[in-house]
Amino acid sequence: MSPRTCLSIILAAGEGTRMKSALPKVLHPVAGLPMVAHVIKATRQAGAGDVAVVVGHGGEQVRKAVAGLASSASTFEQVERLGTAHAVLAAREAIARGYDDVLVMFGDTPLITPEPLQAARERLAHGAAVVVIGFRTDAPTGYGRLIEEGGKLAAIREEKDSTDEERKITFCNGGLMAIAGQHALALLDKVGNANAKAEYYLTDIVEIAAQEGLDVAAIEAPFESLLGINNRAELANAEGIWQKRRRREAMLAGVTLIAPDTVYFSHDTEIGADTVVEPNVWFGPGVTVASDVVIHAFSHIEGAKVAANSQIGPFARLRPGADLHEKAKVGNFCEVKNATIEKGAKVNHLTYIGDARVGAEANIGAGTITCNYDGFSKFHTDIGAGAFVGSNSSLVAPVSIGDGGYVASGSVITESVPADALAFGRARQKTIPGKGRELRERLADAAAAKKAAAK
Amino acid sequence: MSPRTCLSIILAAGEGTRMKSALPKVLHPVAGLPMVAHVIKATRQAGAGDVAVVVGHGGEQVRKAVAGLASSASTFEQVERLGTAHAVLAAREAIARGYDDVLVMFGDTPLITPEPLQAARERLAHGAAVVVIGFRTDAPTGYGRLIEEGGKLAAIREEKDSTDEERKITFCNGGLMAIAGQHALALLDKVGNANAKAEYYLTDIVEIAAQEGLDVAAIEAPFESLLGINNRAELANAEGIWQKRRRREAMLAGVTLIAPDTVYFSHDTEIGADTVVEPNVWFGPGVTVASDVVIHAFSHIEGAKVAANSQIGPFARLRPGADLHEKAKVGNFCEVKNATIEKGAKVNHLTYIGDARVGAEANIGAGTITCNYDGFSKFHTDIGAGAFVGSNSSLVAPVSIGDGGYVASGSVITESVPADALAFGRARQKTIPGKGRELRERLADAAAAKKAAAK
Amino acid sequence: MSPRTCLSIILAAGEGTRMKSALPKVLHPVAGLPMVAHVIKATRQAGAGDVAVVVGHGGEQVRKAVAGLASSASTFEQVERLGTAHAVLAAREAIARGYDDVLVMFGDTPLITPEPLQAARERLAHGAAVVVIGFRTDAPTGYGRLIEEGGKLAAIREEKDSTDEERKITFCNGGLMAIAGQHALALLDKVGNANAKAEYYLTDIVEIAAQEGLDVAAIEAPFESLLGINNRAELANAEGIWQKRRRREAMLAGVTLIAPDTVYFSHDTEIGADTVVEPNVWFGPGVTVASDVVIHAFSHIEGAKVAANSQIGPFARLRPGADLHEKAKVGNFCEVKNATIEKGAKVNHLTYIGDARVGAEANIGAGTITCNYDGFSKFHTDIGAGAFVGSNSSLVAPVSIGDGGYVASGSVITESVPADALAFGRARQKTIPGKGRELRERLADAAAAKKAAAK
Repeated sequence: MSPRTCLSIILAAGEGTRMKSALPKVLHPVAGLPMVAHVIKATRQAGAGDVAVVVGHGGEQVRKAVAGLASSASTFEQVERLGTAHAVLAAREAIARGYDDVLVMFGDTPLITPEPLQAARERLAHGAAVVVIGFRTDAPTGYGRLIEEGGKLAAIREEKDSTDEERKITFCNGGLMAIAGQHALALLDKVGNANAKAEYYLTDIVEIAAQEGLDVAAIEAPFESLLGINNRAELANAEGIWQKRRRREAMLAGVTLIAPDTVYFSHDTEIGADTVVEPNVWFGPGVTVASDVVIHAFSHIEGAKVAANSQIGPFARLRPGADLHEKAKVGNFCEVKNATIEKGAKVNHLTYIGDARVGAEANIGAGTITCNYDGFSKFHTDIGAGAFVGSNSSLVAPVSIGDGGYVASGSVITESVPADALAFGRARQKTIPGKGRELRERLADAAAAKKAAAK
Repeated sequence: MSPRTCLSIILAAGEGTRMKSALPKVLHPVAGLPMVAHVIKATRQAGAGDVAVVVGHGGEQVRKAVAGLASSASTFEQVERLGTAHAVLAAREAIARGYDDVLVMFGDTPLITPEPLQAARERLAHGAAVVVIGFRTDAPTGYGRLIEEGGKLAAIREEKDSTDEERKITFCNGGLMAIAGQHALALLDKVGNANAKAEYYLTDIVEIAAQEGLDVAAIEAPFESLLGINNRAELANAEGIWQKRRRREAMLAGVTLIAPDTVYFSHDTEIGADTVVEPNVWFGPGVTVASDVVIHAFSHIEGAKVAANSQIGPFARLRPGADLHEKAKVGNFCEVKNATIEKGAKVNHLTYIGDARVGAEANIGAGTITCNYDGFSKFHTDIGAGAFVGSNSSLVAPVSIGDGGYVASGSVITESVPADALAFGRARQKTIPGKGRELRERLADAAAAKKAAAK
Repeated sequence: MSPRTCLSIILAAGEGTRMKSALPKVLHPVAGLPMVAHVIKATRQAGAGDVAVVVGHGGEQVRKAVAGLASSASTFEQVERLGTAHAVLAAREAIARGYDDVLVMFGDTPLITPEPLQAARERLAHGAAVVVIGFRTDAPTGYGRLIEEGGKLAAIREEKDSTDEERKITFCNGGLMAIAGQHALALLDKVGNANAKAEYYLTDIVEIAAQEGLDVAAIEAPFESLLGINNRAELANAEGIWQKRRRREAMLAGVTLIAPDTVYFSHDTEIGADTVVEPNVWFGPGVTVASDVVIHAFSHIEGAKVAANSQIGPFARLRPGADLHEKAKVGNFCEVKNATIEKGAKVNHLTYIGDARVGAEANIGAGTITCNYDGFSKFHTDIGAGAFVGSNSSLVAPVSIGDGGYVASGSVITESVPADALAFGRARQKTIPGKGRELRERLADAAAAKKAAAK
């Protein structure tokens, strides 16, 4: 038997006015990834081969973002906003292609995981026509209740339409649904709008299907997986839950987080066992850290690759393209961008390394700057293995220091230094006895005069 | 009808020994503002035109601080400490001026908001003589209970004097009161000290007024608004509650806080919609941030103005007088003090800009330092629009770089550079082939000899 | 009467596979100190003169660590792992020396405090043969219950062997025990292994002793004190509890922690009253801070001594050997290592001071670097009282600046500067009118050509 085909329809047409943002709601990120991308990812992991995102009128930003996120995702426009069933039908063309399973998702539930979606698809595979994903809660007030009869779902009852008995039900509608593809369009087309708001509600298909004698079921997902985001406080809450999950996962896999609540992962951070992360570390997107690395407090890392036994921070910033080989060290107040720090090389203090290679075992003195930008273009600096760059030096790119080259402290290096050569680029010192005191007295007088004049 | 006049009396004579501090308790800050100033602010917002702060014997520090905080606030000294009613009467002179309403506040309740004070004044306006501000709690043990009869407050009963029935009451005395000005002195003067501690208790005026047939009422405020601070753990707790309130307010107004618990606002921080604040950002007093700004992690900002579409951090420090215009960028390990960064200018790496102007679209290279201090006075650096300052340069103020001026990397600039001029201030490089290796060998030998000698 | 002698046996043979670590479990640190060292410390404080640590097969790492931690601690190897009683008996030789009291501890309970151990020893002193340390919990499921009869402990009942009635007991076995030395070996030798796992369980001695008519008791400790650590999530939880305790202690002693949850202490951090610690400060081991110090946000401090009225940070790093005298200031993006900053001296911006002395009231300009390393050895820099080091200077050690010496900004100083002398070490500036524009045009053309070529 070939695997069942699956279409995921993601409703992302809501205006999200409570976000108070020029950015469409579903594009606000959690863990560095737009909410709608989290939903796409979960449906893909649950086996959805195709994704149809329903955007609102003029939803250009979402359309573009979705195109960038997933090659096989298509977008459909819901021109008028006439309810959730109407929104799903905006993707009629996609449904009509014919899928075994259709998942109906919301673009603003970034914490959804594949497990409940797989469970729902499993029920479809065993004959259900509609599967509602619900959650259990001790405080059901306000939620639609899932009315079950004989192991089947009979209806979704809104709070206001519920009997006292029904209100005691703690199994509630989570909004997401799986529909058997063969029934999907027929059921959706039967949804009417004879209600106070004259809207077409997706939840109505439960009763429609039940009345037609089709098998309707409900499955349970954790409440937090279904959280919908409507304002930025809820967004921050979702971020917090996501981070908590990820931190726990990392710790159980052998990563030491001294203060887990202060470490921020991105959606794609990879990190190896026996790596120790001190408090207050930020991982932006695109970071891979090997095992046995020490990341000291106050480090900011994005788009970087860090090999085993490296040391980072405190107060280090690794930017995209930073590539630390084994036992490399990048220390305090150092920034590394688009640069390879080879095995055992040290960049320890107040240094900017951009567009560069630092060779194995090279030592870069405190305050070194690769001057990689002339106002128009960026240039490369190449530092050989075992080179020594004295403190407070400026390496004016394009320039290279050969293997074993030695640059004296405080030098401005504008010409390449051959291997094993010594380079100076600094003025001779002049010392004038007594002049320090003289100068100090003059400056003190000037300061006093200035102060007096200001009165 | 003219609005009712109001006097706020703030009791601030407590010694606060549990703070273990040389600073008087009510001057310990919450969100960068002394606790007593929070109380003054709330009473002002509730309509108190005059404020009388009662300080303890020799309360010079508080007296001075209050004078600096609020022009119309006066202070009164409670020489002996004989109870709360006695403390209020230290301000007899103020009360005697004649006000419609008198609020009695505590200087150590920094979380008080104007709402309950306004509600209490409302009750005075409708005829009450005394209004007690209480709170409801599931754990009333230890608090004085508010005994109500027929919608009126009959008494405040201390825990130890309560019947079993009264102990079940969950409405408790919060300490704050509003008193009708016309009755205030008369009621206060009737308070006696026939009790174990021989003190004059303010709470006694409830029964006195009730017995005289005056209208006495209680209104409710949230428990946390009434929290009194007695040690630094409680101070930190109040700070936490204050921050939580403020963060939520910011998020609901359209500010993204990725990790709200790690962002610290000051009492006067202003911040615009669609601004994104990464984790671990500190706002000291006096900060205004426009909309669409990105503030990266680990930024420390005080006394600064930040215009729209600017970018700050990570690891940036903006100090008082930093004024960033639109699209300005201040990046990692950069400090800006008393300086304007004009439109689109970039100060991105390891730079100190103090007492300066950086012109529009100017680019300041990594490691640039404005040398603004000669040990006695501070001097100005002026950098023109479109100027380029090469990395690791020192600009020795007073000095100016004209529009479009170009400073070569590693230069020490001591004389002003005209517009469109090129300036160098660095030594020529000398490279000595083979000398690097020779030096290295010599240094290695020296190190080995030193090590051997140390044994 | 001489004080009772006490041996502490610490079981540390567990493999800790759930830590997923090459480091043995008991060596994972809490507050910078290995877990087993916390346990040793608590037993010492409870009066244990000798400590016997039972390590697993090949427990070389633990053995070494213990030797380094405590001179009077010995280690014993449990070759096979046949249960807790068997593990205790690995230290038979130590027990046989004869002690009044024997404490049985676990190496993975870093939160244990001396108080319950002292209480248990007290019971031994009053005639008990065995004292079990238990805890009370509302959720006892899974724990062994302490079955008391007539004020004595009759048995420890495992969950699976409990009656319904016994399962309601909320007093549970915490694992730790105190045993009268005179009975210890006899009781332990009577423990059998006739159980499902064929292991020798320490808990069996409770029934054995009770059956022999010996006095067996249980005392209570807080649940969290007994937490055993099995994975890194639990390790982080223990760290969190430890930090919470320590922060509260600091605040109650008069230290202001604006955001206590963001301040990390080490096991040995000392900090004085009226010191203010802003959010996000990390104290590594070996730090002593006096009173009236301000530690600004984002500071990272280890192995440093900080005298009264100093100011640190924000973004400062003090490394081992940093010694700040009164009123010293170390500001943003500054690193101080193995250096004394004398009274009132200022190191305020983007500076590296390593292996140095900065004299009283000296001023170190922004961007100054002590060039202390030649690739092989470290050298000393000595800066005299009242000296002024201009910004962006490089001090190439070994070198000294005499008292009142004045170094011009941007200088490279390679020769010592006498007291009151003025030293320059920078090139003269050359300014070429119009050349800036020319260069800019050339660079712009080059960038455009490069871009075109790339297409």
